[in-house]
Amino acid sequence: MNTDSQADTAAEPLKVLAFDVFGTVVDWHSGIARAVDALGLAVDGDTFASEWRAGYKPALARINAGGQGWTRFDDLHLQMLDELLARHGITHLTDEQKRELNSAWEQLDPWPDAIEGLTRLKESYTICSLSNGNLSLLFKMAQRAGLPWDTILSAETFGVYKPDPKLYSGVARVCDVQPHQVMMVAAHQDDLDAARGCGLQTAYIERPREFGPNGLNPDRPDPANTRFATSLIDLATQLGC
Amino acid sequence: MNTDSQADTAAEPLKVLAFDVFGTVVDWHSGIARAVDALGLAVDGDTFASEWRAGYKPALARINAGGQGWTRFDDLHLQMLDELLARHGITHLTDEQKRELNSAWEQLDPWPDAIEGLTRLKESYTICSLSNGNLSLLFKMAQRAGLPWDTILSAETFGVYKPDPKLYSGVARVCDVQPHQVMMVAAHQDDLDAARGCGLQTAYIERPREFGPNGLNPDRPDPANTRFATSLIDLATQLGC
Repeated sequence: MNTDSQADTAAEPLKVLAFDVFGTVVDWHSGIARAVDALGLAVDGDTFASEWRAGYKPALARINAGGQGWTRFDDLHLQMLDELLARHGITHLTDEQKRELNSAWEQLDPWPDAIEGLTRLKESYTICSLSNGNLSLLFKMAQRAGLPWDTILSAETFGVYKPDPKLYSGVARVCDVQPHQVMMVAAHQDDLDAARGCGLQTAYIERPREFGPNGLNPDRPDPANTRFATSLIDLATQLGC
Repeated sequence: MNTDSQADTAAEPLKVLAFDVFGTVVDWHSGIARAVDALGLAVDGDTFASEWRAGYKPALARINAGGQGWTRFDDLHLQMLDELLARHGITHLTDEQKRELNSAWEQLDPWPDAIEGLTRLKESYTICSLSNGNLSLLFKMAQRAGLPWDTILSAETFGVYKPDPKLYSGVARVCDVQPHQVMMVAAHQDDLDAARGCGLQTAYIERPREFGPNGLNPDRPDPANTRFATSLIDLATQLGC
């Protein structure tokens, strides 16, 4: 499904790989499900993780639409958690327990291929996150998981959430390269569509288990992506790293 | 000159070290002087480097005062270079040569203690830049020099230059810690004064050769700083790393 797009043959070489994080680099579903199950709540972790994540896109869209001002990703997660607990009739968790559960988003494990893939890619390219997660969340995650970012870029860096074009154009701007010298790497076609709209190259990473062992992953790659890879190690190999 | 400030005994421990870069971590004077001398201009590199750097604070103050909008550090350096070349009657450099000379700011060498000091400090703390340099400049410098930042924060991250309080408060905010859990590390007392004004801890690094082998360094540490160190290795030792 690789395509040799015109971007591959442009005058200026690929310089920067910008990575979506949740689902692409780290396995949010199993980490969140495990943290929920550890609390022994009257809902199974698998379901709860899926529901928690499902609130994410509508919440970000509301922020991008304006009106309520900037809200950090951490705080959005906590608001969504409150709503979700109420919906399940779970009322006994203290604020401290909720914050602790919310911090599970900082403690997600990388997919098994992620560290080796990133480490190989970093030898030839600048590698950065480009995530909707806030900076402190991404810092803590990177330190715990050993993600070898050259730097961490976030929606918080640009004051708007993906898929707003400001993020994708912003990576090229702050890295001082042309848009086609940046490749967005994600397991989500909508992220890549927005990146391609800003002139970035795109690499789709297949993550069939993003929604857990029982969850259907409805995402499908567009053949127009610059690369299609089954892991970050596969991407490194394709890019000659 | 160490002082056990109240910050040392506060409930929450020190978490983040934020570093000034030019002069504190890298030796700008000798790198710029060498790049100028390599061009064989009718001015010696030592003088030119000092003059180039001298234009820096007034230029940033003009940006912070507003009116001309945001200008990237790279572009400010290039504007200052144009003015400086004109003042010395040097008219034969092409735009390409000027850009090449300007890129010497990305290619500065760390002080001899910097990599070892940062690497040791990184084992116990989050280490980040907090520099007026723009992000792409700091990326390229970090990659070339092997500076092991956990992440790169810049005036560009916050849309204002030091010593505006937004930068110092911003580090604590994006790292999700209290201000006293951040230590600003710099070879410049004015940087540390501004940081202390925002509640950060401060470490003064003595860099007697910041202005070159012949230049007087007029900077003097305030005894009220949390730490005084003769190198980043010394700081690591003082902090038990």
